[in-house]
Amino acid sequence: MQNPGIIGLMRYRPETAKPLNELAEVLLRGPNSLSRGERELIAAYVSGRNECEFCCTSHSLFAAAQLDEGLPLVRQVRADPDAASISAKLKALLRIAAAVQQSGRDVRAELVTSAREQGATDVEIHDTVLIAAAFCMFNRYVDGLGTVAPEGPDGYGESVRRVVEQGYGV
Amino acid sequence: MQNPGIIGLMRYRPETAKPLNELAEVLLRGPNSLSRGERELIAAYVSGRNECEFCCTSHSLFAAAQLDEGLPLVRQVRADPDAASISAKLKALLRIAAAVQQSGRDVRAELVTSAREQGATDVEIHDTVLIAAAFCMFNRYVDGLGTVAPEGPDGYGESVRRVVEQGYGV
Repeated sequence: MQNPGIIGLMRYRPETAKPLNELAEVLLRGPNSLSRGERELIAAYVSGRNECEFCCTSHSLFAAAQLDEGLPLVRQVRADPDAASISAKLKALLRIAAAVQQSGRDVRAELVTSAREQGATDVEIHDTVLIAAAFCMFNRYVDGLGTVAPEGPDGYGESVRRVVEQGYGV
Repeated sequence: MQNPGIIGLMRYRPETAKPLNELAEVLLRGPNSLSRGERELIAAYVSGRNECEFCCTSHSLFAAAQLDEGLPLVRQVRADPDAASISAKLKALLRIAAAVQQSGRDVRAELVTSAREQGATDVEIHDTVLIAAAFCMFNRYVDGLGTVAPEGPDGYGESVRRVVEQGYGV
């Protein structure tokens, strides 16, 4: 497959590409009290923990393009979310995402209580769990089929423009 | 949420339920050279490895209902796929699924070569990777949001009838 990352897979099997793109669109770009940048940050963070180079680089760039603080903030969050310049609510949601990356059963009640105490709504908690779970799928899909990642962030320029302006699956 | 497992989550957030159901429908019931029973077997096997009680029990029952050999074969596969009475091709695909359950990067070239040697097509290998990856999502989603599983297989009767006869998302 010549197209990098998930793009070649999507072209190879359009029947599964359709619901996969729709899921990404609803979760990462649909109406939400979490900003698109914050949701892409969760996707990039989980992809980094799964060591999926293609997803981590692309969603880091999608996050950076939609956050005022850009790539430095994304790098800070990926390295140490608790020390990053983000809200206490987003830190609590990232702790839930980190648990999901390990196993759904690692999402202890205290993590959810703590996110609620920081102002997270039920939908925000739901969507954080599903974004993290979905990237445990996307990461395995991309790496499990041995796709290639472009060399360096320059190879992602066109994807960043397309996703930020037009969304997934266009 | 009062409905067990993923059912309550689907009712809570219909926007994400739609692509999730469509993905399950295409992967597990759409036209394919792998039978529906074989694909449900892969889903049940991965869910068992992720220790997701709701998904493992429900997809074991969906598999059993669509395989001539029924639940004894499903139990055999979950316990020890290499010793089970299934084709060498399905054994090789289940080894790929087991790797995906750990990490996409664990799907070594030898596993894919071995599946091809046993007659697996590219689409069968693609779909096995994506079914396994998708259940790494569904399992985390169901367990990460602390849903309840019915007590014993009798609690799943209506779901088995609905999924086998009508499919996902009806």
